[in-house]
Amino acid sequence: MSDFLATLRSLVGPAHVLTEGDLSAYERDWRGRLHGKALAVVRPANTDEVAGVVRACAAFGVPMVPQGGNTSLSVGSTPDTSGREVVLSLTRMNAVRDTDQANLTMTVEAGCVLQNVQAAAEAAGLLFPLSLAAEGSCTIGGNLGTNAGGTQVLRYGNTRELCLGLEVVTPQGEVWNGLKGLRKDNTGYDLRNLMIGSEGTLGVITAATLKLFPRPAARLTAWAAVPSMEQAVALLSLAQRSLGADLTGFEVMGRFALSLVDKHMPQLRVPFLEQEAAQYGVLLENSDSESEEHARARFEALLESAFEADCVLDAVVAESIAQAQQLWHIRESIPLAQAQEGLNIKHDISVPISRIPAFVNDTDARLAREIPGVRLVNFGHLGDGNLHYNVQAPEGCDAAAFLREREGDVNDLVYAAVAQFGGSFSAEHGVGALKVDTLSQYQSPVALAMMRQVKQALDPQNLMNPGRVLKL
Amino acid sequence: MSDFLATLRSLVGPAHVLTEGDLSAYERDWRGRLHGKALAVVRPANTDEVAGVVRACAAFGVPMVPQGGNTSLSVGSTPDTSGREVVLSLTRMNAVRDTDQANLTMTVEAGCVLQNVQAAAEAAGLLFPLSLAAEGSCTIGGNLGTNAGGTQVLRYGNTRELCLGLEVVTPQGEVWNGLKGLRKDNTGYDLRNLMIGSEGTLGVITAATLKLFPRPAARLTAWAAVPSMEQAVALLSLAQRSLGADLTGFEVMGRFALSLVDKHMPQLRVPFLEQEAAQYGVLLENSDSESEEHARARFEALLESAFEADCVLDAVVAESIAQAQQLWHIRESIPLAQAQEGLNIKHDISVPISRIPAFVNDTDARLAREIPGVRLVNFGHLGDGNLHYNVQAPEGCDAAAFLREREGDVNDLVYAAVAQFGGSFSAEHGVGALKVDTLSQYQSPVALAMMRQVKQALDPQNLMNPGRVLKL
Repeated sequence: MSDFLATLRSLVGPAHVLTEGDLSAYERDWRGRLHGKALAVVRPANTDEVAGVVRACAAFGVPMVPQGGNTSLSVGSTPDTSGREVVLSLTRMNAVRDTDQANLTMTVEAGCVLQNVQAAAEAAGLLFPLSLAAEGSCTIGGNLGTNAGGTQVLRYGNTRELCLGLEVVTPQGEVWNGLKGLRKDNTGYDLRNLMIGSEGTLGVITAATLKLFPRPAARLTAWAAVPSMEQAVALLSLAQRSLGADLTGFEVMGRFALSLVDKHMPQLRVPFLEQEAAQYGVLLENSDSESEEHARARFEALLESAFEADCVLDAVVAESIAQAQQLWHIRESIPLAQAQEGLNIKHDISVPISRIPAFVNDTDARLAREIPGVRLVNFGHLGDGNLHYNVQAPEGCDAAAFLREREGDVNDLVYAAVAQFGGSFSAEHGVGALKVDTLSQYQSPVALAMMRQVKQALDPQNLMNPGRVLKL
Repeated sequence: MSDFLATLRSLVGPAHVLTEGDLSAYERDWRGRLHGKALAVVRPANTDEVAGVVRACAAFGVPMVPQGGNTSLSVGSTPDTSGREVVLSLTRMNAVRDTDQANLTMTVEAGCVLQNVQAAAEAAGLLFPLSLAAEGSCTIGGNLGTNAGGTQVLRYGNTRELCLGLEVVTPQGEVWNGLKGLRKDNTGYDLRNLMIGSEGTLGVITAATLKLFPRPAARLTAWAAVPSMEQAVALLSLAQRSLGADLTGFEVMGRFALSLVDKHMPQLRVPFLEQEAAQYGVLLENSDSESEEHARARFEALLESAFEADCVLDAVVAESIAQAQQLWHIRESIPLAQAQEGLNIKHDISVPISRIPAFVNDTDARLAREIPGVRLVNFGHLGDGNLHYNVQAPEGCDAAAFLREREGDVNDLVYAAVAQFGGSFSAEHGVGALKVDTLSQYQSPVALAMMRQVKQALDPQNLMNPGRVLKL
């Protein structure tokens, strides 16, 4: 191993091969579920250095864990406890290589923090729409590796849909330069999409060419109180018909989730909570290419027809950017509010939108039968069919004990219901090390067999993030 | 072989195993470049029958050529001349299985003709936006297999972006049911996108769940005369900023292409051809979610700013649906007009939009040096960076001889220029049998190696459309 470490040091410089001191920022996952132990943390500065490190790992038979901002919610980017895995940190590769205004593209390195990618697009007068809670620390390489979702998927798609080209270091340490800024390119298999979402198990993404968009002239936010999930779905259909592609956000939040924000952050003033019938809050965002007046007029027309259709009990359109931010802040505070209430069992699921009301009614009832007094923190991106359907212990219960004793059963119940309604147990957070068994259980055996064939073909030594996503 | 044919007959019924008579509809490619010979044409009625046929082929070691409407422009769906390949025709599988209005999805079988998919969406009050010249005969399975593009990619993406789930029969004859209507699903590798665009070489697509969209309230068409490709690109940027996602079409047509329409179809009355400075015509489409008045006002504002910026020499907004259709008809008549002028050397290329003016100026000049008097039929989807950059013989030349003698040289010159400008030699038509060597020449060796690894892993017998896309 000393030969191996010496090789790494000669490749990237001794200062960038970390083996001592507190490496927990690299070894501990974001949610603190697993504290691993790395053989070393290697921090290459450029693509050639990444390729060199990968070749060295391949030669010495050392497994690699590619890592960006280390914000995985599925334990996908930290080493296991064996002390045998190298963390390949991409954070030094953080350059914006190129911005092409007329082509609406930008080429960035994998270690760019998402917020910096957004800022670089804005500086060019353009929009990179990917937006999610961890944007201040997650990197675009990690977003691509996990095909991150977020709040703008309804209009702009997942990270997958925002990428036109990739640069990837293969498990053999070769560099594939697929950095094309082309919107049409049918020259063989879609390696780009194969790499995106493969969570570092098929290669290391080192750079990407991203799609940019014109910035909307105005972005307006509204909040509606709705009586049921059925009516939330009806409101979504109305909004899609009425606003078309200008509807860029449609978030739903259950009454209990909102009551936790109200309890733990009373200064945030959750709207309409005093109305008993308001079972859900809906946050709508309208990105208008004309003007704020136009956006406001369209929102008002939409809400009028929603009142007429009895979808909506009450609604407010934000009068200022500050008010819009405050409404979004309520939505974004739900994770923290639920954490303050105590640990809960988290799910990141998707179901066809048309089946969400039945899924929720059915699964709420099943859980209530199994766990009298159970509390459901249900919120998410309804426009994408994606719910964070989290299960909180009954009031007064020991949350840690609840998690320890019930997590397996609750996951089984929820994932079985998701499968029954044609959904997915992992909508946007990926599989990582956390959900490998769940994947084996709920993904089709034919699909699993094809995935294994692909993995074995591209990474025959099984050194790229081994054990994550797939059991071989 | 008689055992094999007997097995096929028992699987799908003797009436659906064609071995005699005129099979040229299945054996001859759309552009008439190759008349192959099939061992048999098999026409299964459902997914189980497809799986049975594939298992029989695998057992007997018989290669298969999946086929939909047989409109491939790259000889991708017809058998070779060996008489050893079975054509697996999907056209009997043409059911619309399900339409889900609230989820904005539709599940259709592979053999549905594209126009029927569009009509089924319209009957549900929704839009399936894929639109291309062959829509009256091509099938959705073929569109998926080749990741077809067309005229609405600017707003809605390629076929890839319009598909949420697939049902596929693997080369081993197993059925992968991946028909999920989910907008977010991160549960392992992206097999859907791997299959899409693989041209039947990795499996047989038997059904798909497609994305639908609200129908726009109004669709308006404009025609602008522009002095140069630079100004066409400038107009595109203006239009994207001004119309946002409502810009659904942006087609460019060179003066010579338009003059051929004028010559061979004078009744179509090409606008602005009398203006000498009008080097290109641009067709713009604006899909508005509000009203026709609103669409018209926005188009007028756009064109006003385009006049001010000197992008546009003259412009007209269609006053009626009939006039809009007439303008589109001019665009769609270019292929026929060039055919009436005589055979030419066709290219389906893409280049980053920002580099298109330089690419065109440069390549036009190189070709003029090589072939004095050469005529360029240059038109395409500028909004996607996709040009059909076709090379017509000098006036008075024998077109057939020109094609025979110069096609290789001209392709080399054009594809080298495309590569130099960071483009692709096949934007939307795929590789098929026609461009296998071109792929070997211009695709990166690292990418080719990965593609071969994937192919060999999923189809180790090399029976699925062998020899198309990749040379093994």
